[in-house]
Parts: sequence; C-alpha cells; structure tokens
Amino acid sequence: MSSTAVPPPVTRLIDVLSRLPGVGPKTASRLTYFLLRAPDELSIELSEAVGQMKALTRLCSVCYNITVDDPCPVCSDAVRDQKTIAVVEEPLDVLALERTNVYRGVYHVLHGAISYVNGVGPEDLRIRELVSRVEAGGVNEIIIATNPGLEGDATAMHIQRELAKLPVKLTRLARGLPVGGDIEYADSVTLMRALQGRSDM
Amino acid sequence: MSSTAVPPPVTRLIDVLSRLPGVGPKTASRLTYFLLRAPDELSIELSEAVGQMKALTRLCSVCYNITVDDPCPVCSDAVRDQKTIAVVEEPLDVLALERTNVYRGVYHVLHGAISYVNGVGPEDLRIRELVSRVEAGGVNEIIIATNPGLEGDATAMHIQRELAKLPVKLTRLARGLPVGGDIEYADSVTLMRALQGRSDM
Repeated sequence: MSSTAVPPPVTRLIDVLSRLPGVGPKTASRLTYFLLRAPDELSIELSEAVGQMKALTRLCSVCYNITVDDPCPVCSDAVRDQKTIAVVEEPLDVLALERTNVYRGVYHVLHGAISYVNGVGPEDLRIRELVSRVEAGGVNEIIIATNPGLEGDATAMHIQRELAKLPVKLTRLARGLPVGGDIEYADSVTLMRALQGRSDM
Repeated sequence: MSSTAVPPPVTRLIDVLSRLPGVGPKTASRLTYFLLRAPDELSIELSEAVGQMKALTRLCSVCYNITVDDPCPVCSDAVRDQKTIAVVEEPLDVLALERTNVYRGVYHVLHGAISYVNGVGPEDLRIRELVSRVEAGGVNEIIIATNPGLEGDATAMHIQRELAKLPVKLTRLARGLPVGGDIEYADSVTLMRALQGRSDM
C-alpha cells in the first residue's frame, strides 16, 4: 500500500479500516474507494457518527449495557419486570433478545466470557456487580444467556457457584435444534442436547 | 434497531455503516460494538481518516486517478514510461497493477464501465479524456485493462472504436487460467479463452 499510486489520506483510511474485525486489506480498500466515489455527505456522516458515539455513550451503572442516560431506559422502565435478569456476554446479545419481542425482564451485561486461553478471568467480567445486584434483593430469577459454547459454559458455571448461596432461581437458555435447521446437518453435540432436552408433545 | 436497549448514537453509527457495500445490519452492529469496546483512539482516528480523505484528495487532471497533488505522482514521474497507458475501470485496479511490480507505464482511470443495464454510457466515463490524451500525441501503446466480463468487454470495444483512427498500438490483458487455479474447476469460458490464447512452450 506504499505505492505512489495511492495518496497518503487514502492509505491512512485503508489502514484504519483494516484494524476492524473481519475487515482485511482488500475489504478496507473496497470500502475506502466506495467512500471516495460516494457523495461527500456519507463520509461526513460516518465521520461524525464514529466520533460522537463514544463521546455520547457510557455503561449503565445497573446493567452495564451501553446507554446515553444512566440508568439505561431498560433499567428505568417501570413496565418491565425488574425482578428477572438475563445475564449476557455482550451488548449485542441484549439486542438479539430484544428482537424476540417476548423477553420483558432486564439485563446484566458481563462484557465478555471467561476464557483462560485469552487471559480473561471472572474478575475481568461484571460478575461481582451481578452478585451485588442479587444480594441487594428483589431479584426472583437469573436467566443465564451466555453463548452455548466452552467459554459461555465456563462463565455460566462460575456464576452458578457465585450465586449458589443466594435465594434466587437460576435458569439457562434451552439448547436444541435451531428453528429452520435440518437434523441431517445438525452437529452431534447439538443433537445430543436436543435429545436430552426433549419435551412432551 | 429502534429498541430502547440501543441508544441513538449507536443506532446512528449502525445505520451509516449499513450503507457501505457488503456491510449488512449484522456486520454494522458487530463493527459498532467493536468500536465501543476498543480504545477511544481507534474511533478518533477512524473519524478523522474518513473526514479528511475526501477533503485532501482530488482526481488527477491527467489520468483521473485519486491523488493529493495534481498531476499525480505517477503522471509526474519522469522515470516511468509515460508513453504506455493502462486503461482501467477503477482506482483499485491501479493498485492491483502496481502490486505486480512489473508495470512501469502510466494509467487512465475510466471510473466505471459501460453498462446499459445500470444506465452507464460511454459519456459517463473518462473516455473522451483518454481520446484527447492520445490525440495530444506521445503515446505509443494503450493497454486496455478493463475487467474480463461483459461490461469490461463492451467498454474495451467502445474504446477500440474511438481510437481506431489514431496512430497508437492497442493491446489487452491476456485471458486464461488464473495462476494457482485448477483446470478441473475452471469455468468453460475461461478455459475456452485459455485454449484460444495458448502459447508455444
């Protein structure tokens, strides 16, 4: 990218974009040249949106989701069931649960999962804060909604131990066949979980 | 994305990112939440890089590639062969040719290809400017390096007609099997071209 055929402001944007996850040098070039050809407004808006997002947001002091106001609209919503807390790894998981339109409880965002390979221990996550929330009382159920994998499972087990002595119901999202999936192509672990978790018809 | 769980500055960035090519709502969310968790410097740098790129660059008045200085470093490079012009569709194609490290001529960027389906005619491209460049004299060879497809071919044929009366050699990039490719998986048109263009060993 150091060719004289590429001016420095273009190289710079390609370099920055390449640091985003899932964006390699080729995608970064493609996006950059797209922006060059697009109307100026798009670049201006993108520049502003990126610049302002961090400045205008923070973490909710109750659930640690990203928010403008603290506490966040979910935590301060009297209509929602404040006694049920879904524990998720990332803010994006909150979005996914909100999209179901069936969950009416609140959240607790851990900001990661326990991963000894990546050097992430329980103390790096918002687990202490979750325990405090439960200790403060008024919580009926904790729905552990960590990802269905090694790290999510390790995190779930750790939380289970931490909350064992507290008077709260602990549940976990069901494992099984994804809706619209095909048994023929299901991996054996998923199929095993689907069998174990089978329900009466 | 209108859920109360997503603050407006976050929704805004997701929306803007979704307007980039190849970036759907899911990728846009992923990139946005990555930026939220990344150090502030990355957001600041991205914001600046996007904002400045368009302000600092323009099109070279000779070859129409993107540049800071006009004429661009390639067009003003006395060491390069200014008598050989590679005609490409996009600035990214210049990059690709530069990466070969064998091409020492200059460029002419058309900024598109003729596509009647998309309403792009010859007058929308920098073809007139190419003809003027050749008419001005001093050009020995035009290497047509448009994409090997319907639109690139239509563009190449149009340029061929436009330059027919001028004393300039016209060549085109070879078609054939991509290096590292597999004959078994080559499409029949490519294989046909590879056969037609076979060379003595």
